[in-house]
Amino acid sequence: MKRTNYAGLIDESYLGQTVTLQGWVQKRRDLGALIFIDLRDRKGLVQLTFADEFNSEALHAAEQVRTEYVIEVTGLVAAREGAINENMHSGKIEVQVQHLEVLATAKTTPFAIDDNVEASDDLRLKYRYLDLRRPQMQKNLILRSKITAATHAFLDANGFIDIETPYLAKSTPEGARDYLVPSRINPGSFYALPQSPQLFKQLLMGAGFDRYYQVARAFRDEDLRGDRQPEFTQLDVETSFMSQAEIMDLVNQWMVTIMDKAVGYDLDPAQIPTLTWQEAMDRFGTDKPDLRIGMELIDLSELMQNSTFSVFSKAVVDGGQVKAIVVPGAAQAYSRKALDQKVQYVERFGAKGLPWLKVTDEGINGPIAKFFADDSAALMEATGAQAGDLIVFAADQNPVVAATLDAMRRMFAAEQDLIDESQWAFAWIVDWPLFEYQPEEDRWISAHHPFTMPNEEDLSLLDTVEGAHQAHAQSYDLVLNGYELGSGSIRIHRMDIQQKMLRALGFTPAAAQEAFGFLLEGMEYGFPPMGGIALGLDRLAMLLAGTDNIREVIAFPKNSKGTEPMTEAPLPVAKIQLDDLGLQAPTYADIDAPNMAEE
Amino acid sequence: MKRTNYAGLIDESYLGQTVTLQGWVQKRRDLGALIFIDLRDRKGLVQLTFADEFNSEALHAAEQVRTEYVIEVTGLVAAREGAINENMHSGKIEVQVQHLEVLATAKTTPFAIDDNVEASDDLRLKYRYLDLRRPQMQKNLILRSKITAATHAFLDANGFIDIETPYLAKSTPEGARDYLVPSRINPGSFYALPQSPQLFKQLLMGAGFDRYYQVARAFRDEDLRGDRQPEFTQLDVETSFMSQAEIMDLVNQWMVTIMDKAVGYDLDPAQIPTLTWQEAMDRFGTDKPDLRIGMELIDLSELMQNSTFSVFSKAVVDGGQVKAIVVPGAAQAYSRKALDQKVQYVERFGAKGLPWLKVTDEGINGPIAKFFADDSAALMEATGAQAGDLIVFAADQNPVVAATLDAMRRMFAAEQDLIDESQWAFAWIVDWPLFEYQPEEDRWISAHHPFTMPNEEDLSLLDTVEGAHQAHAQSYDLVLNGYELGSGSIRIHRMDIQQKMLRALGFTPAAAQEAFGFLLEGMEYGFPPMGGIALGLDRLAMLLAGTDNIREVIAFPKNSKGTEPMTEAPLPVAKIQLDDLGLQAPTYADIDAPNMAEE
Repeated sequence: MKRTNYAGLIDESYLGQTVTLQGWVQKRRDLGALIFIDLRDRKGLVQLTFADEFNSEALHAAEQVRTEYVIEVTGLVAAREGAINENMHSGKIEVQVQHLEVLATAKTTPFAIDDNVEASDDLRLKYRYLDLRRPQMQKNLILRSKITAATHAFLDANGFIDIETPYLAKSTPEGARDYLVPSRINPGSFYALPQSPQLFKQLLMGAGFDRYYQVARAFRDEDLRGDRQPEFTQLDVETSFMSQAEIMDLVNQWMVTIMDKAVGYDLDPAQIPTLTWQEAMDRFGTDKPDLRIGMELIDLSELMQNSTFSVFSKAVVDGGQVKAIVVPGAAQAYSRKALDQKVQYVERFGAKGLPWLKVTDEGINGPIAKFFADDSAALMEATGAQAGDLIVFAADQNPVVAATLDAMRRMFAAEQDLIDESQWAFAWIVDWPLFEYQPEEDRWISAHHPFTMPNEEDLSLLDTVEGAHQAHAQSYDLVLNGYELGSGSIRIHRMDIQQKMLRALGFTPAAAQEAFGFLLEGMEYGFPPMGGIALGLDRLAMLLAGTDNIREVIAFPKNSKGTEPMTEAPLPVAKIQLDDLGLQAPTYADIDAPNMAEE
Repeated sequence: MKRTNYAGLIDESYLGQTVTLQGWVQKRRDLGALIFIDLRDRKGLVQLTFADEFNSEALHAAEQVRTEYVIEVTGLVAAREGAINENMHSGKIEVQVQHLEVLATAKTTPFAIDDNVEASDDLRLKYRYLDLRRPQMQKNLILRSKITAATHAFLDANGFIDIETPYLAKSTPEGARDYLVPSRINPGSFYALPQSPQLFKQLLMGAGFDRYYQVARAFRDEDLRGDRQPEFTQLDVETSFMSQAEIMDLVNQWMVTIMDKAVGYDLDPAQIPTLTWQEAMDRFGTDKPDLRIGMELIDLSELMQNSTFSVFSKAVVDGGQVKAIVVPGAAQAYSRKALDQKVQYVERFGAKGLPWLKVTDEGINGPIAKFFADDSAALMEATGAQAGDLIVFAADQNPVVAATLDAMRRMFAAEQDLIDESQWAFAWIVDWPLFEYQPEEDRWISAHHPFTMPNEEDLSLLDTVEGAHQAHAQSYDLVLNGYELGSGSIRIHRMDIQQKMLRALGFTPAAAQEAFGFLLEGMEYGFPPMGGIALGLDRLAMLLAGTDNIREVIAFPKNSKGTEPMTEAPLPVAKIQLDDLGLQAPTYADIDAPNMAEE
């Protein structure tokens, strides 16, 4: 039978009508002569009522029904006699069932289909089809779908062409480790799953498509952390002949559409601030500041260069900084012990301590207060601290100070409940360094990627490797609530500039040719000025869904061991599969199953 | 400078305006004091005119410009003084250039950017970014984008949720050979790139999503033929609680949207015929008949069972058939030699010959005419053949007859120009056999896939393996112009039926568990009735683009050796990459390039 509508959408407007519904049994209450079933589908719940007076066969059938059975019912929509539920779309009605058919039975599920039930991550993933029945997971994936739908609609309306680029691509020394795919036709050769469609989209601009986009899967074989997955999705855009400002405007309008369609939020692009990378580092100690939080970093280096507290004065003399954040009203919230414990945390950034002061009506106190007897007033003025505030300092080389105070700013804001969760704090970060120094490996790497165009005025710096490392780039990151949503740039479209970039990255001419020869050659045939951006769909969906775990917005994610617990992939394969590829692996599966025809 | 509009869109409405345009130099004619440039972008061409009287600097700059340079110009839109081109959107105007800037130079391209220039397939693919500049390739990919845009808009409006399923999945013995992806974290284990999202979409129905879709990449490691690629794209849909008829209706409406948005064709779903598989085989000898062609197969078995032509009578006695097609007006078009040559072609189907008769005003003639002296009138009546027609016969076992006459019907139609290329002949083929016999391997395989639901009345046939092989299925294929566009079915949602299906396919219970245990287990927790379809986007785009080569609608396809000639993927990789995976391969690349940061 064709359903009348979703169960969750049956309401007073159906009163007096006979409806047919299908769905899952959320709950059954058996009062003997009367049975109630809450029927669930993706739109919500409706109450089914079974009684002799409605239909005795249906009542008897309902006795056999259990939780998570799939049933079809036909019945009359009537006003509830009591127990009206105002929080439920169907809360004022019930369906008096005349016919019940069991479409599928169900064993007792390993966890209840309920947002409030806790189950281990791996159990949830093993029974993902049950986990996904929970209303919150339904909401999350539907939200994600709304983001992509808004993206398709917006970019299509703006003349962007949806072009698919290959997933069986070339392994290039770019970014993280590649996932490899052995070729059977060419034994010993491998495709690589792309880490992004970057090169292909540049080639599409070279081909004159002018406005490209793709909802593209990307792959990185990295060790997994909380918000990383082996495969992830990029909302990938590239344009020709547009300036950085024009692209940022376009992305702003796109975000307006997404925020409206996905969460019903009226985003005003004029309210999105643009910060230079330097300004973000200075004010927040990070290139992805959470602008929902105040507590900006205050530079006290000048004030402290002659401080009697040698930790401060020495840091400045050594070329470093003294900076502070003021945690409003937090003086009483933290004991000396509680603050000392945070030192362990900031040691990971290289900090050797976490000096602090409490401001009281009587002045400052704390273990280092004695050093500031003379310049207490100047300190108060510089920091703007008020009685009741806590001041937290970092004094070290600039990167240590930045990392320490960025982390403390976010930690204190969270602990003191100073983050307005209703806010969506977008920000653009621009004018990035082209390179960044990697101290662990003592080498310079691309701050974004090797195809990023330097600022016009820095082009001549690329004539030397050392100069190149000082250049800034036409790149722009979009930040939301302290997360990097996406990273964009104007790209290099000229071979001579691209060659200098690769040289500054340490490529010999031969290595550059081997890795990117096709791109360099392409640039000799008239590539247009181009730029674009890639937004992380998983992260955007995660933020809009209000979770901090990316797995909550992915239908079938991998766990932290790279395994998908439901199918148990990856698994050993049959030896013949490896033989076909000319490969030897440490183990084989004992598999001998027949082939089947294709759909 | 921001462009005023696309070059190809500048027309009389811009007369008297100063415009800024960017694009590629299609052609340059240098008349000394006057230079004409055709400027190209994705919307078309516009004529730029350079002369002293407009701007002498620009004129001099234009002297240096060559074909495929990328330029930016600013100039005045004026009426052409002569040489009006009615076939060109901008054909009545020219842009009198006041400023020219070269944005990128270009070497002489290996082939001209022109639809009429022939270049070898591999040369086109090696310089794909140039090949894609050709207007036809631009049109093809834009057409493809229109299909996906229409799909997103239609399915979103109909409550379908766009859900991404994993590309790093489990290798299952289903269909073709899997592409494998070695796992580094679990050495010796492999992911497989999915051959379709089939199992995941069924699990999503189990999860209650009710209406799922995805524009999904799929992967098959098969030997490559003309219309096959290692990776291809499916428009993949799945629904719960819908009948076959409801799903077919929905797909019809979807096709109406696509045909409208992609090619401006007003498709009337009421005109789409539904044929049973048996009817299609009987009338056309194929399960994907091209309904633009008449010439249906005429069954003459009864008439010929006592024929004096022993080839015919013996075929019937041996349990086979005699069937014929009538090629209208073709009697004079083919010599005896020309018809004899077709025998070689049909031998591949097992046919031992290709008997034929020509119908003239004087009666029938040809080498076998003498056998039909007596029943010539009956033959004319049965076939409806007229003077001037050619009758072509096949007499053999049914599959040989079907394959032979299907091929001949299409071949004669093409040769005799009997196909109306302006028609879009959709058809549904329903009521498929559940299994088909594979004579080469002497075994029974799924006609579609192992998750296809048998017809309700055939369910009890599944109690035995032999019975199962006789069952018919709730499956429905959509055919367009003789190509299978997509294949759909109602799926099995009950474990007991699924187990019987797998048994009938030759799976032991243990092998079934190993391959599909997660699905079988899921079905124990209340899976709803479900069904769906997957349409081949590449093939649909190919047909709507009017080409018969799938590579013409893919941005960066592989060639017939599985290689992408531009990047040369697949390639050997560094030994360390294989060591990381615990693999040994026959060759390694001598690669030692630095890593780079990620975008």
